[in-house]
Amino acid sequence: MVNEIADGHDLVTEPLEELYGPIADELEQVEEILRREMCSTYPYVNELIRYGALLRGKRLRPALLLLAAKCVGEPTERHLNLAAVMEMIHSATLVHDDVLDDASVRRHVATVNARWDNEASLLLGDLLFSRAFCLAAGTASMIACQLIARSAQIICEGEIRQKGRRGDFSLTEAEYLEILDAKTAELYACSCQLGAHFLEAQAADVERLTQYGRYLGIAFQISDDLLDIAGNEAETGKSLGTDLAQQKPTLPVIRALELAHGDQRDYLLSLLRGQPPGQTEPLRRFLARCGALTYARNKGREFAERAIEQVATLPPSPAQQSLRKLGQFVVARSH
Amino acid sequence: MVNEIADGHDLVTEPLEELYGPIADELEQVEEILRREMCSTYPYVNELIRYGALLRGKRLRPALLLLAAKCVGEPTERHLNLAAVMEMIHSATLVHDDVLDDASVRRHVATVNARWDNEASLLLGDLLFSRAFCLAAGTASMIACQLIARSAQIICEGEIRQKGRRGDFSLTEAEYLEILDAKTAELYACSCQLGAHFLEAQAADVERLTQYGRYLGIAFQISDDLLDIAGNEAETGKSLGTDLAQQKPTLPVIRALELAHGDQRDYLLSLLRGQPPGQTEPLRRFLARCGALTYARNKGREFAERAIEQVATLPPSPAQQSLRKLGQFVVARSH
Repeated sequence: MVNEIADGHDLVTEPLEELYGPIADELEQVEEILRREMCSTYPYVNELIRYGALLRGKRLRPALLLLAAKCVGEPTERHLNLAAVMEMIHSATLVHDDVLDDASVRRHVATVNARWDNEASLLLGDLLFSRAFCLAAGTASMIACQLIARSAQIICEGEIRQKGRRGDFSLTEAEYLEILDAKTAELYACSCQLGAHFLEAQAADVERLTQYGRYLGIAFQISDDLLDIAGNEAETGKSLGTDLAQQKPTLPVIRALELAHGDQRDYLLSLLRGQPPGQTEPLRRFLARCGALTYARNKGREFAERAIEQVATLPPSPAQQSLRKLGQFVVARSH
Repeated sequence: MVNEIADGHDLVTEPLEELYGPIADELEQVEEILRREMCSTYPYVNELIRYGALLRGKRLRPALLLLAAKCVGEPTERHLNLAAVMEMIHSATLVHDDVLDDASVRRHVATVNARWDNEASLLLGDLLFSRAFCLAAGTASMIACQLIARSAQIICEGEIRQKGRRGDFSLTEAEYLEILDAKTAELYACSCQLGAHFLEAQAADVERLTQYGRYLGIAFQISDDLLDIAGNEAETGKSLGTDLAQQKPTLPVIRALELAHGDQRDYLLSLLRGQPPGQTEPLRRFLARCGALTYARNKGREFAERAIEQVATLPPSPAQQSLRKLGQFVVARSH
């Protein structure tokens, strides 16, 4: 299994589109639904929502939903709509995140709050969120509405819990992982669950795919948090160092605090508390030297491995193969 | 009909509880649902959401839902849950509104963004919104989920349209009313519709009650906008003058601009554009003198009359009587 992840290094340059191969047609249809949903007859609303659509991401959540479906059957019209719902909820959280993080660049484009203001971001996020629920309710599936609303609630709670622990460097690794599970992995898990649910898959397979999504989400967020410290703005296309500027304890920091004692620990805390934004170099060096960056990287791989194990017992298919490779991809990003 | 409204003067001092008499037991049960929903096992989440619950309003939307139900039958368990959903969605919009308005006092209590910060308001609003959808989905009614999601979307669009027209003093009365319809009256209409829908009421009665809610909402918002100009912070328990400070054209302003010409109009525009917050006196005097405040008051009454007409043909009952009196109440506030 470790080899699967080690191979992942190559995947950074391997286009994601290849992994999306088995669901290329379906993703195209999801794009059409998104184009239809992300517009308005009111000029100012249209301007805002079209700009929101410009912040086009990796479409990871729709892809997960469709790949999970493809692992156990053939995606239906309902899957396409729910895949669009997942992307819209994700976009809503991103737009609101940008207010929280006071970020100015996302996906290589100025964020809504940088281009307009925080109010515009707040309202656009609300609109995307309510449109997503409209589209979900339009699928006439009660269970989908329930799962999606429940996930949205868990995500909000995760964000609030994270905010409550800002500047609190006593946060443990277990608590950190719990928060990641809520604020990030929940939507991955929900995407996979919805994908598998409507195709009369066996309960055990639905459960395995849901767990796959959860572990993948945690691996992804650990690696995203690593990029915020050790990444490159030009490559990632977004504002970095915001976690450190906001004194948000992430895994490398939690690990380094576990390892450091005495003067070392005091020095680290002073770096964490005094750190002015954009001057992350001394802290980054500290985290690299004590092995905390490597530790976090390995932890991300560990969760990616667990994700891959979940789908290993599913019948081999191009979709199943893609899910395995996605496990490698999410951690390869931070290498 | 005009007499019904004229009588309304007395109602300012008449407690709203009397109007809620026919649904007192049901409202108590809604309070219990809200207490159950507005808490969390996570301490910081709980602190925030409990504080949000402190901002206890008039419970107008749950009351409308239950009174509408009572006009055509007996409210069920589902009605109680949906009444709580309406209040939670309303609370979510209030919490987000306070960010938009940068308001510091609401319902005589410091707003969440004044007590914590804008981030806390943003996340609390999102949480209330997603919990409301959870509770709605829990009622297992597809049509309720669809109506609620659709209303939430219309409300967001209304807010965005209003933002887009800020500082634009060419806004017409018709456009202003359209925006009120979306951002305020939609939730009133949806509450009444949900109340009547599940009791096998005749389609015409559901439609009449829905229209009642819509007209009542417009009357309420016209009167609320009037209070922002001509009200008293101590009595209303919230920050006033925010519409003027934000150059939001409301009905008295739109009317005064219609009436004023030449130098008068230039003077009015200079007051509107230069107005520093808290110094609304010269503007208020201008609006009173030219009859714009009276015009807006009468327009509010007119919509309240239309609301009352909608329910006039329903069989007389204590609930129907309450809906009539509510029509008087919403405009009496601004007298």
